[in-house]
Amino acid sequence: MTTLKIQTPIIIVNFKTYSEATGKKAVELAKKAEKASKETGVHIVVAPQFTDIAHVAEAVEIPVFAQHIDAVCPGAFTGHVLAESVKEAGAVGTLINHSERQLKLADVDAVIRHAKEKELTSCVCTSNPAISAAVAYLHPDIISIEPPELIGTGIAVSKAQPEAVTNTIKLVRAVNDHAVILCGAGISHGEDVAVALKLGTQGVLVASGIVKAKDPYIVLQEFADASKI
Amino acid sequence: MTTLKIQTPIIIVNFKTYSEATGKKAVELAKKAEKASKETGVHIVVAPQFTDIAHVAEAVEIPVFAQHIDAVCPGAFTGHVLAESVKEAGAVGTLINHSERQLKLADVDAVIRHAKEKELTSCVCTSNPAISAAVAYLHPDIISIEPPELIGTGIAVSKAQPEAVTNTIKLVRAVNDHAVILCGAGISHGEDVAVALKLGTQGVLVASGIVKAKDPYIVLQEFADASKI
Amino acid sequence: MTTLKIQTPIIIVNFKTYSEATGKKAVELAKKAEKASKETGVHIVVAPQFTDIAHVAEAVEIPVFAQHIDAVCPGAFTGHVLAESVKEAGAVGTLINHSERQLKLADVDAVIRHAKEKELTSCVCTSNPAISAAVAYLHPDIISIEPPELIGTGIAVSKAQPEAVTNTIKLVRAVNDHAVILCGAGISHGEDVAVALKLGTQGVLVASGIVKAKDPYIVLQEFADASKI
Amino acid sequence: MTTLKIQTPIIIVNFKTYSEATGKKAVELAKKAEKASKETGVHIVVAPQFTDIAHVAEAVEIPVFAQHIDAVCPGAFTGHVLAESVKEAGAVGTLINHSERQLKLADVDAVIRHAKEKELTSCVCTSNPAISAAVAYLHPDIISIEPPELIGTGIAVSKAQPEAVTNTIKLVRAVNDHAVILCGAGISHGEDVAVALKLGTQGVLVASGIVKAKDPYIVLQEFADASKI
Repeated sequence: MTTLKIQTPIIIVNFKTYSEATGKKAVELAKKAEKASKETGVHIVVAPQFTDIAHVAEAVEIPVFAQHIDAVCPGAFTGHVLAESVKEAGAVGTLINHSERQLKLADVDAVIRHAKEKELTSCVCTSNPAISAAVAYLHPDIISIEPPELIGTGIAVSKAQPEAVTNTIKLVRAVNDHAVILCGAGISHGEDVAVALKLGTQGVLVASGIVKAKDPYIVLQEFADASKI
Repeated sequence: MTTLKIQTPIIIVNFKTYSEATGKKAVELAKKAEKASKETGVHIVVAPQFTDIAHVAEAVEIPVFAQHIDAVCPGAFTGHVLAESVKEAGAVGTLINHSERQLKLADVDAVIRHAKEKELTSCVCTSNPAISAAVAYLHPDIISIEPPELIGTGIAVSKAQPEAVTNTIKLVRAVNDHAVILCGAGISHGEDVAVALKLGTQGVLVASGIVKAKDPYIVLQEFADASKI
Repeated sequence: MTTLKIQTPIIIVNFKTYSEATGKKAVELAKKAEKASKETGVHIVVAPQFTDIAHVAEAVEIPVFAQHIDAVCPGAFTGHVLAESVKEAGAVGTLINHSERQLKLADVDAVIRHAKEKELTSCVCTSNPAISAAVAYLHPDIISIEPPELIGTGIAVSKAQPEAVTNTIKLVRAVNDHAVILCGAGISHGEDVAVALKLGTQGVLVASGIVKAKDPYIVLQEFADASKI
Repeated sequence: MTTLKIQTPIIIVNFKTYSEATGKKAVELAKKAEKASKETGVHIVVAPQFTDIAHVAEAVEIPVFAQHIDAVCPGAFTGHVLAESVKEAGAVGTLINHSERQLKLADVDAVIRHAKEKELTSCVCTSNPAISAAVAYLHPDIISIEPPELIGTGIAVSKAQPEAVTNTIKLVRAVNDHAVILCGAGISHGEDVAVALKLGTQGVLVASGIVKAKDPYIVLQEFADASKI
């Protein structure tokens, strides 16, 4: 997978720093995602922690994203995360500007450019339609709208704020016809995914809905099935 | 290695985000450090990027440190770095508060505690003697004084600011008799290391002096030899 | 002045934290700006430090801007700067996202909204044409492009990077036909101002070129005269 | 008042960014504090927002503190707050590192030094005894322990966490015999103040307990009376 071909519908699973998705458990969860992807034919991406990218990328064939990269180039930047480094570890893309790891405006631009140069798929998270439209001008590969007040609540953006999703699509498409548009926050049921796609998105960005599920594989399958309709 | 036994003299090699120490090159450099350590009997630690910890820790038997951890616990912290995660990837310690990745005061305290709970050796970087003494009260395992104006210059702290080193030792020892005290910044020659130890430190924290050297192995050997005298 | 009527051409003088523009000297400099504005008929705005807004606004009739506001509402935010507070102190507008005080993307959006609610004119600083276009979607009153590498150099953006200016105008105008567009960085001579206007901007954002000048009044007059042509 | 003579017991009232303590209301509240101070003979300090320092300092004779200063010197630091500027506006001291405006460790040190150079009284906020002891080594004039989980709750630190207060005193006094020690968070009643002093502090840092009170003057009087016993 390169930045040039993103298959949709797409489900991106953000592992965050959940203990259920750290270390060996990250690899196990990625394998479940791979299994659900193969069985359903739906494109599933996993976004583990930096330290787990290498092992996850070795264990599965589905695409692996980083959760963040810093706006720095190779050099004297102790403790930072390079586009180059997540790529060499096996990532093919990265989340950018997640509401839990926000970037300065100029750094959002810089990081999208770095990702492009290194052929990493860039997925920028935004919190409302206006910001989504602003980001559309910076030409990321994927824009995912996630109203922060719904993250982790189990109240799905697609059902609670459908207009945030449709306005994002409308505003983004006015200036950018190729970015893949996702939505996230509170996605917990297959129906939430189905509604998101019906609203016009090309997939979802999910986290606790999968990672914290009793049986993540079952829920992944449910999400994938719902996204095929 | 646990937090309980740090052998000295010790040389910690910070790989930063140098391209010469990223991915496969990180593993190669770690192997050179391991070879120099075994041949000289001097304790050498390597601190690669987050994404390289797993492969480096699998490739070498010398201790591996992270370059930074965030002051967060497992949970919804996209793009952050957990003590738990660097440990599971194979790190046995971590740099904290490097001048290129500074932390808020309260987070320095929190991160030292997290490291202790997870049995990671904590190495806090400080920029002057007063800050070193302040940090001594937070009980890290290692304190490394690095005047930021000398970092990357090739002008060794041990020769350019010997009083910063000796004052750090004096102030720290007044309140903390067990923390290992190192110095860093500009260390480029075996003599810089020898002088650092003569001033009373128990080792050095180095980066470009090794990573950017034409032959890092030769310089590592030189540093290790100088630290034995 | 409200957000509804910004007269152009406009010269905004950013006092930064220069000692030449702090306290009583801020009031003196503002009076010189007022004199130059009255004599030339050119709209000049002054942007002093937070602590000087009240005295400057009492001393002059030309518009006073804050240099920054925080993305917070009234409440428990010790040490932060409210839109409400700079307004009550006498400011009628504010700089936002200056390269020396950058904001997270979501906060740029929030702060523009706060300014609008409080009827403060918002002037967002950007560092390249793509970011300018992104910001245009957030509907500030003024967009000022300032390539950070030229700030404080005396090398004028209008002469060194005319294409950054014209591309900003082109991209911004494609989505936003009412925002006032300025440029800044290195503006030191009347000619720099004249060129900026000839490129299509509606004014300039200046700092050291005025504040650090031997005779700021003479330079302000020169800038104002140049902007009339 | 200079850094050399801080009279105790002392009550510092942090105005935060409460609307009840902004602009004209900041001046009114400061006058009430002055009245309570004169009537009771108890030293009361007010800490208004940056934009209100000048008017408050002109209106009252009691000491005025800033809520924060940045670790920068005069120069090109748009939107930052200088020690020099709050001093020229009329402040005689400053809060530092409040839990709502935390600083990097190195900046806490730098800001205490700047305050000292400009003869501003420095009051550093800390969140636990170990951090208080660390800060004691940086020689601020005042250390105020404020467990962040109690701020704004109405549950007084002096009653809910007396051991945090007494441990702070014990650890600080082991290394620093001159810093004034305060406590804050949740202080709402005269008794909370009395208990704080009985535990060994020399005063309190309060905010909502006064600012949000129905009649701040009555509560200030109650606090001042309680601190005399």
